[in-house]
Amino acid sequence: MNPNPYSQRLARCSSFMHEAGLEALLLTKPANMFYLTGDGRLCAYALITNEGKVALGVPSTDVQDVRELAFFDAITGFEDEVGMIHSIAHHFEHFGIKKGTVGLEYTFLTQSMMGMLTHPHAKPAQVEVKDSTHVLSQLRMVKEPQEIERIHAAAKVADAGMAAAVKAVKPGTTESEVAAEAEYAMRRGGAEGFSRTYVSSGPRTNIAHGLPTARKIQPGDLVMIDIHPIVNGYSADLCRTVCAGKPTSAQEAAYKLYLKAQQATINRIRPGVGIDELEGTLHGILKDAGHADHIFGPPIHGVGIEFEEPPLPAGHAFFHGEKAPPPLVADVVIAVGNCGLYLGSWGVRVEDTNAVTADGRTTLTSFRRTLSPD
Amino acid sequence: MNPNPYSQRLARCSSFMHEAGLEALLLTKPANMFYLTGDGRLCAYALITNEGKVALGVPSTDVQDVRELAFFDAITGFEDEVGMIHSIAHHFEHFGIKKGTVGLEYTFLTQSMMGMLTHPHAKPAQVEVKDSTHVLSQLRMVKEPQEIERIHAAAKVADAGMAAAVKAVKPGTTESEVAAEAEYAMRRGGAEGFSRTYVSSGPRTNIAHGLPTARKIQPGDLVMIDIHPIVNGYSADLCRTVCAGKPTSAQEAAYKLYLKAQQATINRIRPGVGIDELEGTLHGILKDAGHADHIFGPPIHGVGIEFEEPPLPAGHAFFHGEKAPPPLVADVVIAVGNCGLYLGSWGVRVEDTNAVTADGRTTLTSFRRTLSPD
Repeated sequence: MNPNPYSQRLARCSSFMHEAGLEALLLTKPANMFYLTGDGRLCAYALITNEGKVALGVPSTDVQDVRELAFFDAITGFEDEVGMIHSIAHHFEHFGIKKGTVGLEYTFLTQSMMGMLTHPHAKPAQVEVKDSTHVLSQLRMVKEPQEIERIHAAAKVADAGMAAAVKAVKPGTTESEVAAEAEYAMRRGGAEGFSRTYVSSGPRTNIAHGLPTARKIQPGDLVMIDIHPIVNGYSADLCRTVCAGKPTSAQEAAYKLYLKAQQATINRIRPGVGIDELEGTLHGILKDAGHADHIFGPPIHGVGIEFEEPPLPAGHAFFHGEKAPPPLVADVVIAVGNCGLYLGSWGVRVEDTNAVTADGRTTLTSFRRTLSPD
Repeated sequence: MNPNPYSQRLARCSSFMHEAGLEALLLTKPANMFYLTGDGRLCAYALITNEGKVALGVPSTDVQDVRELAFFDAITGFEDEVGMIHSIAHHFEHFGIKKGTVGLEYTFLTQSMMGMLTHPHAKPAQVEVKDSTHVLSQLRMVKEPQEIERIHAAAKVADAGMAAAVKAVKPGTTESEVAAEAEYAMRRGGAEGFSRTYVSSGPRTNIAHGLPTARKIQPGDLVMIDIHPIVNGYSADLCRTVCAGKPTSAQEAAYKLYLKAQQATINRIRPGVGIDELEGTLHGILKDAGHADHIFGPPIHGVGIEFEEPPLPAGHAFFHGEKAPPPLVADVVIAVGNCGLYLGSWGVRVEDTNAVTADGRTTLTSFRRTLSPD
């Protein structure tokens, strides 16, 4: 394992920045800062030059903590927003950047934060800004062995979380209580955190983003559970659907069909295959069975520091700025099965995290794929 | 209790929109949509005219669910991003909005989402856009009785979560395991969810945003716990610092001082008092004791649908677009104690949620305020 992967990541970043005509990147997205410096936190920024120099700005309270965690050339603590703006100007001056183009994270920055970073007291007047989403996506898409190890560790924690959640699926239990079991098991299993947990039941399994509610599970309900633990800074993505009782034959048939489509898609993963081909396989099997109108959302996305990251579908509203991803290569990690099959009064979804290998794939999440919770 | 508060909220919203010269609001922030329509979800939008008409756009999978939860005049389901853009155009046409100014949420919208909502296929060419952050802030700042009841319910769940977390504070337990206990107790106590849980220990109590890690608590460590349950759509904000063992006299003194400053500030809450005056009280006591350089961040913010919402400090980087809040009136809800006292190798913070009453305040969170976890 490489104890300091940051020099190599910064060198690759420099080369992408030169290609994109960028003098520097001004980053505030924690996942991107974590990848390039070893630390990603709220209310902080990283200015990274195309020569691989890193300046960090963090709350003054956090300077010592960041010194121990991050790889950098210069660090400034600030007291407040005015201080943050001035420290950005200071770092631009320190690096001698007076003109050229600086990349910003357009898929992350709010209008207000954009106003801060391009404030005349922060950014030199002759420096232009443009979107650098694609630079960071290219950079993070292919994983290092130690990154795949961490995603695998997260996948094992996801399996443990799912086991706890599925065990709690019983009539009378609320969706939120099922989420409680998953999250508790994930933290106890070694996760330092998790991204949003989805638990939906009964008619709510038909909605696209089923955040848990106080709804009590009814006998015979389908329950959809989608979890995303974070272990050592890396995520996994796992979704299962189970039945709180005996499923109807329509539910059985829909589940079997979706699982068949998902597994067929996973079996096609290998270097050289396009994300669009995989999407075509999954959607194709559902459409051939007459379900063209019962699918929602892109079925495949990358997994890494974020549970949903590049490769991402081009042109998706919430990911605008992404270019169409290139064909798969070894060490890309993707989740397969995000689109679901929505039949109106209920839905089914099965999703697993997979690493592309030299000649195929390894499925990192492994919790059993059955409608029965037992 | 008013079973349908939305007509009244929309009427107040209309009046603020007329004042701000807005034809309509185009909202995607879940908290704002929830306030005005009864439903706020991801990947959805609400177009609200200055006559109080509401059009919703949601994933096609979600139409039936939203029909049962939301107050609206028109609803459209979309299949994908292109469909979302076209449905926005359709609703503009339906309401006859061809020119004028439409308000957008600049403190929420990323550059990419901004590009979607102002896409030439979404927004009529002669319609201008501007920031409407302040309109929504004004609207949500003073709570209805039923909103305060819900915040109070969340405060009780926060107390239960804090009790579980503090009970778990022991040498050898990880920060993440402490968070696990808080979150589990909150969900079991009736929360449908929570915003980010902060747990930091030892030297990490000195940082501004201490997300939990796998760090094991050491004997004598301070542990800072900050939790935010969501109950029936409403939040509370509660922070305590406890010691895993016997605190040093310096830790005792810092804790007593901070608690004195926080309580003195809470005791000054009443209609007519400015947020700046309260901030002055809290900071003043700390500064008078020689700690001017040991404070970080604004000490006071509103609590409601979000655990951190208007009244918010004007000009804060992450809330740009907020105007300086007016003096307090009855039924504003604020958390007091967010700035902390950071002594370099450790810090202390105590924070409670309070509702302004006709002649003072009610503190809604009540977990005991002691450094001892027992």
